[in-house]
Amino acid sequence: MNTKDNILVIGAGLCGSLLSLRLAQRGYQVTLVEKRPDLRKTTQDAGRSINLALSDRGLKGLRLAGVEEDAKKLCIPMNGRMIHDRQSNTFLSKYSGRKNEYINSVSRPGLNKLLLDAAEAMPNVKIIFNHGCKTVDLPNASATFKNYETNEEVTLSGDILLGTDGAGSAVRKNMFLHKKFLFSFSQDWLTHGYKELEIPAKKDGGYRTYTNALHIWPRGEDMLIALPNLDGSFTVTLFLPYKNSDYCFENLNTPERVTEYFEKEFPDALELMPNLAEEFFNNPTGPLGTIKCSPWSTYGKTLLLGDAAHAIVPFYGQGMNASFEDVVVFDEILEKYESNLTDGTLHWETIFQEYEVNRKKDTDAIADLAVDNFHEMKEHTASPLFQRKRKLETAFEAEFPQEYYSKYSLVTFNEHITYDEALRKGRAQDKAILNLLDDGKLPDSLSLQEKLKLVKRETKEIMHDDAVVKNLK
Amino acid sequence: MNTKDNILVIGAGLCGSLLSLRLAQRGYQVTLVEKRPDLRKTTQDAGRSINLALSDRGLKGLRLAGVEEDAKKLCIPMNGRMIHDRQSNTFLSKYSGRKNEYINSVSRPGLNKLLLDAAEAMPNVKIIFNHGCKTVDLPNASATFKNYETNEEVTLSGDILLGTDGAGSAVRKNMFLHKKFLFSFSQDWLTHGYKELEIPAKKDGGYRTYTNALHIWPRGEDMLIALPNLDGSFTVTLFLPYKNSDYCFENLNTPERVTEYFEKEFPDALELMPNLAEEFFNNPTGPLGTIKCSPWSTYGKTLLLGDAAHAIVPFYGQGMNASFEDVVVFDEILEKYESNLTDGTLHWETIFQEYEVNRKKDTDAIADLAVDNFHEMKEHTASPLFQRKRKLETAFEAEFPQEYYSKYSLVTFNEHITYDEALRKGRAQDKAILNLLDDGKLPDSLSLQEKLKLVKRETKEIMHDDAVVKNLK
Repeated sequence: MNTKDNILVIGAGLCGSLLSLRLAQRGYQVTLVEKRPDLRKTTQDAGRSINLALSDRGLKGLRLAGVEEDAKKLCIPMNGRMIHDRQSNTFLSKYSGRKNEYINSVSRPGLNKLLLDAAEAMPNVKIIFNHGCKTVDLPNASATFKNYETNEEVTLSGDILLGTDGAGSAVRKNMFLHKKFLFSFSQDWLTHGYKELEIPAKKDGGYRTYTNALHIWPRGEDMLIALPNLDGSFTVTLFLPYKNSDYCFENLNTPERVTEYFEKEFPDALELMPNLAEEFFNNPTGPLGTIKCSPWSTYGKTLLLGDAAHAIVPFYGQGMNASFEDVVVFDEILEKYESNLTDGTLHWETIFQEYEVNRKKDTDAIADLAVDNFHEMKEHTASPLFQRKRKLETAFEAEFPQEYYSKYSLVTFNEHITYDEALRKGRAQDKAILNLLDDGKLPDSLSLQEKLKLVKRETKEIMHDDAVVKNLK
Repeated sequence: MNTKDNILVIGAGLCGSLLSLRLAQRGYQVTLVEKRPDLRKTTQDAGRSINLALSDRGLKGLRLAGVEEDAKKLCIPMNGRMIHDRQSNTFLSKYSGRKNEYINSVSRPGLNKLLLDAAEAMPNVKIIFNHGCKTVDLPNASATFKNYETNEEVTLSGDILLGTDGAGSAVRKNMFLHKKFLFSFSQDWLTHGYKELEIPAKKDGGYRTYTNALHIWPRGEDMLIALPNLDGSFTVTLFLPYKNSDYCFENLNTPERVTEYFEKEFPDALELMPNLAEEFFNNPTGPLGTIKCSPWSTYGKTLLLGDAAHAIVPFYGQGMNASFEDVVVFDEILEKYESNLTDGTLHWETIFQEYEVNRKKDTDAIADLAVDNFHEMKEHTASPLFQRKRKLETAFEAEFPQEYYSKYSLVTFNEHITYDEALRKGRAQDKAILNLLDDGKLPDSLSLQEKLKLVKRETKEIMHDDAVVKNLK
């Protein structure tokens, strides 16, 4: 154990904490550096994604590090989307026709604390807070930090440096500006921003609306969602265009306008939100962006993981899950090379490159799926054709649980297949069902089994036709 | 005329020169600033895209400014791709089954000089060379330049500022760094770089190989191409991986290795290139990248056009053509607003935004088509299924010239439809033919007319099926 490399991990958020814990379990000496104060000692970041959706891919990562059971104590199961229409009618659209397939609402700081505690309990992990990364010496796995308590500069280095410093990654920015290699990079912003609000708990600590669902108020261009917290409250997020719309962040500029907007679009939510106007103007408006880049590693010395490598929009509830799955994939490759060691030295460059070749197509896929779901959640859930598709899929999943998995199920509950496979199969299935329905080829006269057979055949044909074009390349 | 706005144009390459000429013809006061020396007085940039493909969309832009006929004098028609195999066999794959559909090889500096001369002949155009743009004051349509002759700083401003300063645009970089709005941006690099080489003219000034074709030596991962020049020479471009290949820029590091590589892969080209090794090591290796961004305009004061807004890889021969088409589209919108003037003032912000809404989907489309064609040129041209497709398409175009246009023809010779339409229809046609061929549904027993009917029906179905999925959004 003593001869294992020193690893410098920058960023002690969800990904960096889990990664550090796992690397320490493998016997590495880990130094984990975080720019923010220790969140176990302060409260911070009000109004920024207080709770998140944790599902099977994320749980697999937590399981790998032995913290799944502890994490589950922080979870509230959500069995489906509770759709709220303008007339305050609700109906539950289940995530799956199978009973054991649900997602969980979990507190971001709660889960982060759990992971920091577990990492800190390892003798070979050192965590340093309040140190902001200023520059990275990429070829030497070394970085200079500003100590925000003393304003001093500190330089730290490792045998390798792992950047898990999130969507605004300082490590990635250093790669972008490095200029000695070609760095592909994209940042794509949606026309919408988000703002976090709250449905507080009842005075007795109970929930003001149905607990075990992800609540959605889809309104075409706008959307409101709410996820439950353990303390009886819901964290509510409003997704709204920045401008060029009857109601948008640019023109919702008085408490009266905000209330008018909620009265018109989300009357049943408004009833549950006594502090709406105050929160609306106190909480920041956040942008919604997708970040992709390549290469993730440089000089066989530095590697990006998690949001630093692939920030995605939140509409599939997969951001944290993708980051935890990064740790699983990286760990598998590390395991392979560790068990085949000949001269006692790991060739990190090979490991980093194999990790990217393995993983990038999948994080690209979940990024694209998350943008698709942005449109699905705010618009499609109100389309009759889409609703017929969802109804049919739920019936397939209930009646033939081993034979049919919707795109959502493939992404969310089938962690044994990759995001890329889930995207290809899921999109082909959607296309097959929508076109069969639109062409009147799934009449009521057919049995559910006959319908499933047609859908499967059409899906197979679509995937075959796509492959003929693609395999030429 | 005297009351028209002052326009500051940054970048006097192909796009900036044509745009300035056209705006001057409309009566605007134009100041055109270029960082390089006047190319009419110096020779420069050896080894960087000396000739380009000019086709219908580009010619339309030149026609708009009244310089098409002069430009045609610089053109050498190319009727198809002359494919060279490893055994030095050649065959001509025509660009179209229609006789009047061909592309042209044109000298970049030659065409640029022509446009600068035409712009400079206008009394309301002032051209300033040797001034590099350092910073842009986006809200005030003002920019600071370094005069490379005196090292002094100069600030210039206009009522509006147009950035036509190419793929490395300083104006765009200022937008990226501005931080007061969300700027979507991507730079995507291919794994390949390029290097320009030469087949010199014969001693008598004649051509050493067939003149009226774009010569291609497709070799899977690598590719060599050659375009004719008026002086009897050909400009040759080698596209090759940077690394991780038997032959790549990283390991072609001695004259012997370079010659060995050409002997093995391009023996007939090598015979025509007496100065190969010298040129290989003297000329730079250039990267191949796609750049997309949005918004193209800020504050109703600045707008990006040409490569500054949308740099693409060269594999469709559409880079210059897309930039000239930008001028056509911008001019059409300007015409509409000028002829509907009520209070005498143009609202540039509206014009800029309408231009982007109109144009961006098309420049995104040609960017994607150009990457597709990278794979088509280096790999597919050698695939039997692809060759059967091309043969069938050429027959369709020859026999039914008004009824069938291949993707290449739609993009290159059908300037009345947009790149986006060309992409959607062209990809659907390709998918239809490849799958019909692959499934054995176009047997020789069918007449050409029957085959065309099947292809058209299948294409229509593919486009319909795609639309059902898309229109949900």
